[in-house]
Amino acid sequence: MTPTTKPTVLVLPGEGIGPEVVGAARHVLEHVLDRAGLDATIREHAVGLPAYERTGQWLPDAVRDEIDQVAATPHGAVLFGATADEPIGELRSRYDLFANLRPARPLRALRDVSPLRPERLDGVDLLLVRELVSGVYYGRRRTGVDAGQRWAGQEMYYREDEIRRIVRCALEHAEARRRRLTLVHKANAIPDVFGLWLEVLAEEAPAFPDVEVRDMYADTMAMQMVLRPADFDVIVTSNLLGDVLSEITGAVCGSLGLLPSATLSPTGFALYEPVGGTAPDLAGTGHANPLGTIGSVELMLRHTFGAPRWADFLADGVERAVESCRTPDIAGPGSAPCTTKEMAAAVCD
Amino acid sequence: MTPTTKPTVLVLPGEGIGPEVVGAARHVLEHVLDRAGLDATIREHAVGLPAYERTGQWLPDAVRDEIDQVAATPHGAVLFGATADEPIGELRSRYDLFANLRPARPLRALRDVSPLRPERLDGVDLLLVRELVSGVYYGRRRTGVDAGQRWAGQEMYYREDEIRRIVRCALEHAEARRRRLTLVHKANAIPDVFGLWLEVLAEEAPAFPDVEVRDMYADTMAMQMVLRPADFDVIVTSNLLGDVLSEITGAVCGSLGLLPSATLSPTGFALYEPVGGTAPDLAGTGHANPLGTIGSVELMLRHTFGAPRWADFLADGVERAVESCRTPDIAGPGSAPCTTKEMAAAVCD
Ligand SMILES: CC(C)[C@H](C(=O)O)[C@@H](O)C(=O)O
Ligand SMILES: CC(C)[C@H](C(=O)O)[C@@H](O)C(=O)O
Repeated sequence: MTPTTKPTVLVLPGEGIGPEVVGAARHVLEHVLDRAGLDATIREHAVGLPAYERTGQWLPDAVRDEIDQVAATPHGAVLFGATADEPIGELRSRYDLFANLRPARPLRALRDVSPLRPERLDGVDLLLVRELVSGVYYGRRRTGVDAGQRWAGQEMYYREDEIRRIVRCALEHAEARRRRLTLVHKANAIPDVFGLWLEVLAEEAPAFPDVEVRDMYADTMAMQMVLRPADFDVIVTSNLLGDVLSEITGAVCGSLGLLPSATLSPTGFALYEPVGGTAPDLAGTGHANPLGTIGSVELMLRHTFGAPRWADFLADGVERAVESCRTPDIAGPGSAPCTTKEMAAAVCD
Repeated sequence: MTPTTKPTVLVLPGEGIGPEVVGAARHVLEHVLDRAGLDATIREHAVGLPAYERTGQWLPDAVRDEIDQVAATPHGAVLFGATADEPIGELRSRYDLFANLRPARPLRALRDVSPLRPERLDGVDLLLVRELVSGVYYGRRRTGVDAGQRWAGQEMYYREDEIRRIVRCALEHAEARRRRLTLVHKANAIPDVFGLWLEVLAEEAPAFPDVEVRDMYADTMAMQMVLRPADFDVIVTSNLLGDVLSEITGAVCGSLGLLPSATLSPTGFALYEPVGGTAPDLAGTGHANPLGTIGSVELMLRHTFGAPRWADFLADGVERAVESCRTPDIAGPGSAPCTTKEMAAAVCD
């Protein structure tokens, strides 16, 4: 359903390749909104290194205030580029952006760039649902010295309700997709924490009788994602395990630059960002791959704009564009690579 | 150098496919020792499920006493099969088996079973060095209820000396190999713990001026292991991250059943086991892949017997055997799979 109030999109390019890929993706977003006759308020602000250099703050107060306001509206969103460090962690926890959705489906035209044999890619269509505001990343930290030896600790910690909402979110997505959910854990080594994940899954699963639910150790999953990625549909896991596993899905697709993500809060406020990061070696070359960010715009059209048809329209544009135009990371030998801007233009065409 | 006292090898098959693969590997070990004119005491005991069913103990007192004795001798070793749960964790921490070495080099004849395109396998020769007796696996556990919500925590914890010995072990191996070491960490999310790893690495690296040292985030490494596995030589990391990453190397080689491991204690006492685990679905079929266990025997010949030439001799036998004889996991379409026993016999031939 189309939102009744006009969405507001705050564009936060960040640093590294962030400004380039976000510039390209914003161009694509505006093009699609125009074609679709959809209205939105779009505003852009510096965060991360460029903000720090000007204001001494990674997330300047004025920008934070504006995000606070937008987060309180019914259809607020952030299109984020990349920062090496803050403010991404702060944004995630401040706005309770707990559900990180990382879909991975290899593009048809790009089967030849995956490191996997092409036949292994048949039917690969994964959605990794990663818990993003708890776990060891946000756990209690301690340091000290004991008998002359320094030591450091940080606690992997989960509360039942934190687990419940991410498990429910994953079950809902599984129900709307291919109805298979795999919980990834390490209960044989971290029994209380992942035991609680398994208990909560057992409590929630009966409400989704059509979803086939199983669980798997993280190490086994790491291997299966390479050996048999087509066997899975929705995967739900903790913050740290999800971080590592989602990059395997990226590798399977051929380039990290291809992977989009959407991170949802309980209120519907959402942050869209490519999985790729700042890629300092590519920054300023004009050749960074914008498809992960453009894919994040596709997710924004789906979740924030409630416009699935236009999301599909954009996905289709991407499939066609890569038939002729590819940034260096996906160009493959013997074809002339295109630039970030050319890629965006090809998608719009 | 050949040991002056006769090595003692305790064979602990465990459960699942453990007895089958260990039976095959013991056969190969005895064959090589015979050919080499090397002497050893070999004794076998039930642990894990079969022991529990008979004695009510996963690690019966009598077996523990015997391992205690063997661990105190200069050339003691355990050849372990697999257990789903205990006593593997208990053995690791009781005998301070801190350095888990997981080499991964795709067999020439098996390039066609890897999920990766064959050209990606050129030059792949990895050694993952995983810390095995500390980290979150052995961290402080807490559970409770807070405002009606259950919660659970387990601390990721490292002490400087625990890090130092594993980092040194990895540097030594790197020096004896291709002289590249990558420390894998997650210091951008778990700064104190992995900050300490980075500090200790910076302190130790200067003693190994020929080794090129770098560090990488665990998520990036997960991707690079699939995209560019040939870029790495020795990888050193923590217990949990090493668990997940080593299975990616297994996938890259084509089957988890192929991967061997050696786990060393500071005294030289060592435990050899395949990475594969109990594989309950394969247990009793007679078709489990024994090569990971046979590869572990190769590592035993190197480390415990000090017989590198006979280790190479065995490695060569494995390369030749897989040209004609393959268990189902590596058989590939159109070739008749062989049994665990046939595989061992082929290696001996
Ligand atoms: C059984 C389990 C606790 C173990 C681990 O995670 O260490 C296993 O996966 C391994 O890698 O040996
Ligand atoms: C920058 C870092 C803390 C972050 C994470 O691990 O969450 C990144 O790797 C990601 O996946 O978004």
